[in-house]
Amino acid sequence: MISNRRDFLKTTAASGAAGAMGLVSQRSSSTAGKSNELAAKLERLQAAPVLKTEFFQQPVKIASIELLKNGRHYLVRARSTDGAEGIAGAHDSVMATTFPIFLQRVAPFFIGKDARELESLVHGVYLKDSNYKWQGLPFWVCVASLEIAVLDLLGKVAHKPLGDLLGGVVRKEIAVYRASGNRGNSPEAEIDYLKKIVAETGANAIKFRLGARMRYDDASTRRDHSLIPLTRKTFGDKMTIYADANGSYDIPMSIKIGKIMEEYRLSFLEEPVPFDYYDETKQIADRLRIPIAGGEQESSLRRFRWMIENDGVQIVQPDLLYFGGLIRSVKVARMAAAAGMDCTAHMSGGGLGYLYIAHFASCVPNCGPHQEYKGDGDTTPVTCESSSLKSENGVMKIPSGPGLGINFDREFINKAGVVSL
Amino acid sequence: MISNRRDFLKTTAASGAAGAMGLVSQRSSSTAGKSNELAAKLERLQAAPVLKTEFFQQPVKIASIELLKNGRHYLVRARSTDGAEGIAGAHDSVMATTFPIFLQRVAPFFIGKDARELESLVHGVYLKDSNYKWQGLPFWVCVASLEIAVLDLLGKVAHKPLGDLLGGVVRKEIAVYRASGNRGNSPEAEIDYLKKIVAETGANAIKFRLGARMRYDDASTRRDHSLIPLTRKTFGDKMTIYADANGSYDIPMSIKIGKIMEEYRLSFLEEPVPFDYYDETKQIADRLRIPIAGGEQESSLRRFRWMIENDGVQIVQPDLLYFGGLIRSVKVARMAAAAGMDCTAHMSGGGLGYLYIAHFASCVPNCGPHQEYKGDGDTTPVTCESSSLKSENGVMKIPSGPGLGINFDREFINKAGVVSL
Repeated sequence: MISNRRDFLKTTAASGAAGAMGLVSQRSSSTAGKSNELAAKLERLQAAPVLKTEFFQQPVKIASIELLKNGRHYLVRARSTDGAEGIAGAHDSVMATTFPIFLQRVAPFFIGKDARELESLVHGVYLKDSNYKWQGLPFWVCVASLEIAVLDLLGKVAHKPLGDLLGGVVRKEIAVYRASGNRGNSPEAEIDYLKKIVAETGANAIKFRLGARMRYDDASTRRDHSLIPLTRKTFGDKMTIYADANGSYDIPMSIKIGKIMEEYRLSFLEEPVPFDYYDETKQIADRLRIPIAGGEQESSLRRFRWMIENDGVQIVQPDLLYFGGLIRSVKVARMAAAAGMDCTAHMSGGGLGYLYIAHFASCVPNCGPHQEYKGDGDTTPVTCESSSLKSENGVMKIPSGPGLGINFDREFINKAGVVSL
Repeated sequence: MISNRRDFLKTTAASGAAGAMGLVSQRSSSTAGKSNELAAKLERLQAAPVLKTEFFQQPVKIASIELLKNGRHYLVRARSTDGAEGIAGAHDSVMATTFPIFLQRVAPFFIGKDARELESLVHGVYLKDSNYKWQGLPFWVCVASLEIAVLDLLGKVAHKPLGDLLGGVVRKEIAVYRASGNRGNSPEAEIDYLKKIVAETGANAIKFRLGARMRYDDASTRRDHSLIPLTRKTFGDKMTIYADANGSYDIPMSIKIGKIMEEYRLSFLEEPVPFDYYDETKQIADRLRIPIAGGEQESSLRRFRWMIENDGVQIVQPDLLYFGGLIRSVKVARMAAAAGMDCTAHMSGGGLGYLYIAHFASCVPNCGPHQEYKGDGDTTPVTCESSSLKSENGVMKIPSGPGLGINFDREFINKAGVVSL
């Protein structure tokens, strides 16, 4: 699981310590050459377009973008002047607070534009009216929700699933993992919960939480020490086990817990220290064999490039909504691929996020072995002809119909109100 | 103006090239020792408290936090259970879009808490309900507007100006600079405008804009080439001249323009490349003698620490509102001081921002020679007994009364509505 590049660097450092100065210099300069080459490649990939537009003969002019609300659900509806329609579920709990940003700073920019230009429009709205100063979750969730509705619209026009628009479908189904959102319960209670979600989905991969979210204390550390061996003992050698510290640790505690995770063959340690502690995260990665995962809160393409170029993490995890949508996230995945890294999308909130994760994985060769699934908890009324949208024996079929490949219940949409200021 | 540390590093590098290997190693390890020492100092300063609480004998329990609106002006009013009151002007245009964040994610956390704990409350609200994922302008502007109202409340209770609460007043007046917000006009028109704002304020420092905001083109480059010498020629040797590229350039163009700025003795180049291009900014700084200024869009204390530790810029510019308030910004200033750097606060929007800048400078020894002033354009109806709030001969007196040291027009406050969802 450890990236070749990190192994290469570790080997170089070890030989250097035992070898003559000349050899060290030689190896260093060869490493530097390799890293300059990677840096140049990443810079090119950051600029290279993702969205395929050859499916469209004519403009797909955006006639309207509406934010709809039904109960606690927020939806974005995009319509073309030709009467085509795309609908996406937004991040409900975020949109409840950011709808003015959506209505004032994001949506108006897209009206009257050609949806085929979506990729440059996403960059355009970032530059428009100094929106770049708003870089971060509240802005990008609005952009992402709109982007997915427009991708659905484009897919419907082209009769192509999202994966084909974003580079080409490379897989029809995904192996899923289920993540527990618990902290503070007893190790035994957590094991019972993990058993339950494994039984529900048939998943052969799980993720549980470490630390106390952005801090740790004696109780959380006792729980960590107990849960790591207990998960392996309970689920056996065939289960893939991940753990997420949500920025709880400092460097020494990350090393201590990381070594226990290595002993019990866990597969990644997510966010050991606060997300904006890049140097510390890299220091931890350099001192552990277990891969470090991160990127959920990252809002900058350039900073993802830094993390990839510097092997600051070994698995990058853009959140498809927090990071501004699928196009930007596929870009991160392509940069990760150039460095031999996996890019496994992070899933925030509930709603249709599991479906966006599936479409992302459909066209990202290096999406990693398991994708997060929360579909069994979603209450958005949708149907799908090409997939049950359920995890069966740990595997979910990816919808293959046009766009998102789902149908929203018409009554649910018709009863939704249009959000305005 | 150039930081000693950068000079030191440059000298070291130059001697190293001419010297023997042994000497280089010796110097390098001495540089490394110095930089480890600085890193440890910065880490301590990031954690060290700023707010002085010894002025208060009793709790100052927060009874209410209200968001008020009168016309386009937003205000925050904080009241204690003892009937004391603090009022701050918010960032009007941002708050028009972020008020649900203020009302839902920020204000409720402070109710019933002891205002003397403001510093830990600001960190607490960042951790509360995963608000840290919202790191960025929309969240921090809400926190900052509330923080300043509570600082005003605390100052009124203690009969101390803000500067005393934030470490101690070190100056009573500030020399100001005026910044032009223009782009795209002719060099001659811009010179006329700069003359006008210099005449209005008597400022002996000005700032103008370069590039085309987050991009450049032939027209903007021609304007840049013309304006740099023209400003020096027009205003003479005694004028301090700054220029802000707002992320317009790439590395080669930054070097090209930076060298012209050096020739004409301009005093800093602000944000040559997009703000999240940290490595590029540092590379530019390393290759130019003119100091590089930046930090307006920075939302992370840890990233400011990186910029300071790595000499990524030579002047740090936290925006008092975008960055979450005065306490966090003073922390950045103290880290900058440890590295021998100036920390000149950035002023966003209009409103009372010029006043917050003045209070920040009142207690920050390394605030730099000139502070931005836009007071002549503000329409918030306030009076002040200890200052005209005007720039006279390029100098503004800092209000010395309790808290912000100003009085809001009562009718204006009474006529304001309370914003709710």
